[in-house]
This record gives sequence, structure tokens and C-alpha cells, in this order.
Amino acid sequence: MSNKDVKELAIEQAKTFGGKLEVVSKVTIESREDLSIAYTPGVAAVSSAIHENKELAYELTTKKNTVAVVSDGSAVLGLGNIGPEAAMPVMEGKAALFKRFANVDSIPIVLDTQDTEEIIQTVKAIAPTFGGINLEDISAPRCFEIEQRLIEELDIPVFHDDQHGTAIVVLAALFNSLKLINKSLDEVKVVVNGGGSAGLSITRKFLAAGIKHVTVVDRAGIICEGDASLAPHHAEIAKITNREHRTGTLSDALKGTDVFVGVSAPGALKAEWITEMNDKPVIFAMANPTPEIFPDEALKAGAYIVGTGRSDFPNQINNVLAFPGIFRGALDARAKKITVDMQIAAAKGIASLISEDELTTTNIIPDAFQEGVAKVVAQSVSQAVEK
Amino acid sequence: MSNKDVKELAIEQAKTFGGKLEVVSKVTIESREDLSIAYTPGVAAVSSAIHENKELAYELTTKKNTVAVVSDGSAVLGLGNIGPEAAMPVMEGKAALFKRFANVDSIPIVLDTQDTEEIIQTVKAIAPTFGGINLEDISAPRCFEIEQRLIEELDIPVFHDDQHGTAIVVLAALFNSLKLINKSLDEVKVVVNGGGSAGLSITRKFLAAGIKHVTVVDRAGIICEGDASLAPHHAEIAKITNREHRTGTLSDALKGTDVFVGVSAPGALKAEWITEMNDKPVIFAMANPTPEIFPDEALKAGAYIVGTGRSDFPNQINNVLAFPGIFRGALDARAKKITVDMQIAAAKGIASLISEDELTTTNIIPDAFQEGVAKVVAQSVSQAVEK
Repeated sequence: MSNKDVKELAIEQAKTFGGKLEVVSKVTIESREDLSIAYTPGVAAVSSAIHENKELAYELTTKKNTVAVVSDGSAVLGLGNIGPEAAMPVMEGKAALFKRFANVDSIPIVLDTQDTEEIIQTVKAIAPTFGGINLEDISAPRCFEIEQRLIEELDIPVFHDDQHGTAIVVLAALFNSLKLINKSLDEVKVVVNGGGSAGLSITRKFLAAGIKHVTVVDRAGIICEGDASLAPHHAEIAKITNREHRTGTLSDALKGTDVFVGVSAPGALKAEWITEMNDKPVIFAMANPTPEIFPDEALKAGAYIVGTGRSDFPNQINNVLAFPGIFRGALDARAKKITVDMQIAAAKGIASLISEDELTTTNIIPDAFQEGVAKVVAQSVSQAVEK
Repeated sequence: MSNKDVKELAIEQAKTFGGKLEVVSKVTIESREDLSIAYTPGVAAVSSAIHENKELAYELTTKKNTVAVVSDGSAVLGLGNIGPEAAMPVMEGKAALFKRFANVDSIPIVLDTQDTEEIIQTVKAIAPTFGGINLEDISAPRCFEIEQRLIEELDIPVFHDDQHGTAIVVLAALFNSLKLINKSLDEVKVVVNGGGSAGLSITRKFLAAGIKHVTVVDRAGIICEGDASLAPHHAEIAKITNREHRTGTLSDALKGTDVFVGVSAPGALKAEWITEMNDKPVIFAMANPTPEIFPDEALKAGAYIVGTGRSDFPNQINNVLAFPGIFRGALDARAKKITVDMQIAAAKGIASLISEDELTTTNIIPDAFQEGVAKVVAQSVSQAVEK
């Protein structure tokens, strides 16, 4: 199926169905008696019960199974700042995946504002409706403050999938890769190419998981502590990465390291740089749809394991492995936050879906449609909730 | 079925189903190809198309068929200000009715604010998601400004059902009642008992429909122009009602009038006052669940036609006859507003569902489950959209 076909089919599908979601009633309304139970006067008893004990909202309403997928349309896929209406098809798709993979009811909410404070206030205002908030396609650096503030100020889980989703799946892929290359978390040296929200989240997740050596490279080169020209969020990350204080380009950064993680741009990784990496280099080239380097080229240059964001190559780093199960687990456990521990537990859960027997350099991570992924992730996440 | 049964069944239903709504995907996601059409990379083509032409959101997303049911929980049924969580079951019920009667996908949004300006800003912020906004159970007088501002500032229909829904259905009931009592719109004299949002909307709708003589009575008595103690919204309505400048009580107001419309309190209408009304009095006693007067008592006192809000008596004035078809019609016609003309057209549509042959004093208005109500209302509303 060519790329053009997919685009045509997507437009055709959107036209045929008029969007991808439908809100249906779980209860039958076919008689006056049905009406009096599902609506007035019966519903007053349900409302009164919740009025007396707000916690009952989780038992008696859709709140417990419903997640808002919220976007301001400022950083949609590779399309950039295309606004709320144009972001809607992506949010609908995301909601469809939530339902398909984890039976989470999810509702797209696209916003007519890109002001940080207005977004925060709007999400807080609508929050009583929902059991969780999935932030989506909100550009950096606003996304950091928006997520952080909402996590602090709301008592339901808030999760910016663009930051953490890929990070969790690539961490899972790394866990299994390390088994194959026989290196430990504390010795492995990682270069993250891309200083955007995904790159920074990957970096923090890797450090939290026990990796000691991470270096972040952005368009301007290696991010190094003390560089006065760094933006605030880069200055922050510089304090905990690149402890050797290397400077220079991506090529300089890669020398003597074990793992390349790209969330950057097509073709950003040159084959000759791979030859300067340590033995059995691991390459995750996740720029989409055109990766930092194509797998065949990377393998020819000596890469031992290659993963991309694409479904037509082995080892697809696909965030659909993470977010449905993460919210399923958080909702089931009635978690108030999705902590870093819960995210690392999710990565371990994903990694555990490939048994030792099945684990090969072209099979480090489960397929999106492998049976039971969301269930295992949900259980891992639930168990990591702080009691 | 006793009232207690209904309450128990409603709680049981809410527990069993965990709320009344489910968000399902209309598209199949069972293969990588499905994923690439419904989500990335295919979805990018849909987003790009909308980015180029925002109007395509109506063709390619759920926007065109989706209505938000928005409440701040400040005036829920007869329960008062019970807050957003406790309002949720009512909003879910409303959404279930939207789907059942008019195939409108509707999404409850309950708000963690009761501040007029914050509500307006929140609804404006989430508006790109939706094809229409149904405001629900927001207390007066805030509801007037909230609705008015949103109608002015948004380009999608905004409709406060508590104000207009009952008004439209009672107007339909009145249209058919006038045929039976052989009186014309311009001669009939109407007393509206209740100066809240429903009473004032009924009054304005009646005047817009061509009725010349309406008097509004509130707890403090007849609302009369020039009374310095009137609240602003009552002073406004006083300028266009009660042109005889009557003062006094409800009893005084009713003398020599033809129609009583109650949106007030249980038992508010005494039987003996009916005897002082004109020939063939029409009584709409819509306090719920206990009406201003029970039908048997009203009929004994000389009432010719009696309607209530209850399903266990004839002539139920049920707003479910109106709101599903009104939004269906507004969405189908891509109306930017739901004008008074469209609302009166809806009332005429509802009235038209009772043929002249079927029209009797105990059958002035269709049953909620009569086939085709929403369809007829939608067509009437669509045709009344200003081109």
C-alpha cells in the first residue's frame, strides 16, 4: 500500500463515517418506564447519592472510564501548528485507539486557545467530567508547564503522551536490547538526538530507570552544562546529562557510546558515525515517516539492533503499546497521578511481553496487535501505584 | 411502579453500567493497515485538508453531529446547587436521549466553576470540538448572560434547554389547545406563574408567536411595569407583559384569562381561582413531580384542558419532544444560531404531529415515543433557518 493510497483511504474513511467516534447509550430507552429510570425522576436519586458522597461519581457515572484527549492543535504530528479543527482527526484516532486497545472511553477536546494559562484553566474547569486527561500535540515548551501545573492542581491523572508515550516504549525496547547486547543499565551510554518534549522525556525516563550516561544533542549540538545560550528547559537537562561535559556535534557525541535514540529529523544519523560507536550499537531512529537512518543502511554500518517508528520495519517503537494500558491501569487503580515509577513499570510490562525464547534482534518489542499488551501494561501500572 | 422503585432502579442501573454512555469507534482497527488509515500516517491527510479549509471539519470529523451538554451543576432538577459531579447523571441521561431520539452524539461536560465569565471562557475554549452547545441546569440569572454571550460570540448553535425546551413544548400544546377552545393567538389571555428562566422564556416565546396578552406572576405577585422593587430581568419582562398594569396576587391575575401556565411550585394553583377564569380554561401545571394542581381537581373546577410534566397523566409537556429534533435540525442545516423563529417552527412541528382527527382535550401533544417526532421537528427547524 503506497503512502498516497493511505492518504486517500483516510480521507475517504473520514467522509464516509463523518469522523471516527460515536457516543452511544449503554441503557435502553424504549418505554416511559425506561425514561423514568434513565432520566427523570429516577436520575435524581443517582444525583442525590453523589451529592452526599462525591466519591460515588466513580461508581455511578462514566467518569471512572472516561479520558479527555485534549489538544490545542499547536504541534500536530509533523504538521506543526495547524489549529484545533485540523487537530480533531488525530484526536478522534487516538480516542478510537483508547477504546480498541483498552476499552477506555475517550473524548477529543480541541481548544480555541494556545495560551498556557487559558489551557490550564479550561482543563481544570472541565476536569470533574473525566477520570483522566491525556494531553496531545501541544508544542514545547508550553507543554511542560501545562502538564506540570495540571498534575499538581488536579486529583486525576494527567499525561502528555507526546512526551512520555514514546519514551516508555523506547525504554521497553532498550530493556530488551540490553539483554541481547549483554550490557547493564548503569554502564550503557546513550545519546538522545532531539531536545524537544519527547527527547527530554526520554532522557528523564532513562535516568529514572537507572541509566547513568545520557547525552542530549539538539540542532545546535551537544547540550552541555554551563552553555549560557541554552533555553531554560535545556539548561535544566544539562545539569543531569553529559557528565563528561562533551561539546560538539552529534558525530562527536556518538563516539564510544552504545545507543542512539533519535526523535529528530529524517537522515540526521550518518552511517559512518555508527562505525565509531561501541560494539553492538543499538539504533532507535524514530523520526516519522522518514527515520534518521533507514534500517538496512544502519545494519550495513554495523548496527546490531535497529528500531524505527514505522510498521513496515521490524521493532516498531509505537506509543500505542503504552498509552491505552497506562490509562487503563491508572483508572482501574483510581490513581491520582501517573508517576515516573508507574511509567517505568509500564515499560517493564511491555518488555515482558517478549519472552526470552522469542527475543531476537528483530523482535525486541511486541506488535501493536499482540494479544494482551494493554492488559499486561495496565496490571504493571496498577501495581506501581503508591498506596 | 412506585417512586421508590424508580429511584432504586436508577441507582442499580447506574451501578451496573457505570454511567449511561460509551464512546465507540465507527471504524475498524484490526490490522496495521487499519491503523495507518485511522491513525498515522493516513490521518495527516485528513488534518491537512481541514487545515487548508476549516469548513471541512464538518465533513471529515465528528463535529457536525456532536453536541456538548454543559452544566455547572447549579440548578439540577429540583435538587438545586449540587455541583458538577452530582449533575453528571442528569447530563448522561440527556445525552442518552439525544442519541435515542435524534441520533445526535452528545457529550456531558460538567464544570468546576460557577463563575459566569469562567463558564463563558471555558465553553468558548472547547467550542471547536462541537457542532452545538446545549446548556443545562445552570441557575438564573447567570444562565441568561451565559447563553446570550455564547450565542453572540460563537458560530455554532447555543441553546439553554431549561429556558427554551419547556417553552417550545408548551407553545405546541397551546397551539393545539387553541384549536379546541376556538380562540385565536391575538385574543387569548395567558398567565405565566413563575418568574424563573423557564417562565421568562415561555413568556417571550408566547409573545414572539403572536400572543398579545401575557401576565407573569412571581412569588411576590404580579410583575408590573414601574415596580421599583423588580430585579433587572423582571423589569425587562414587565415592559412587554401585563399591559393592563394589573397588580396583586396570582388569584387577581387569573380573573378573566384563558390559560394558566405554571412553572412554579406544588399546589400553587387553587381550584377556586379556575372558576374565575374565562370559558374553557386551559391549565398547564408543570411543577415536577407535584404539579401546581392535579388534573382531576382542575377538571372538577371547570378546566377544559389540563397538561402536566408527568407521564402518568394525559398531555405530558415533555421537553424531550423538542431538544433532540431542534439540535438535529440545527446541525443538519449547519445553522449558526437557534433563533426564536426556529424555536416557534419547532413548536408548530410538534403540534402538527397530532392530526385534527386525533385532537381531543386529552390528546393535544404527542407522546415522547411517538414515531417520527424528532424528524418532523428537525425538518421544521431546518426550514426556518435564515439563509
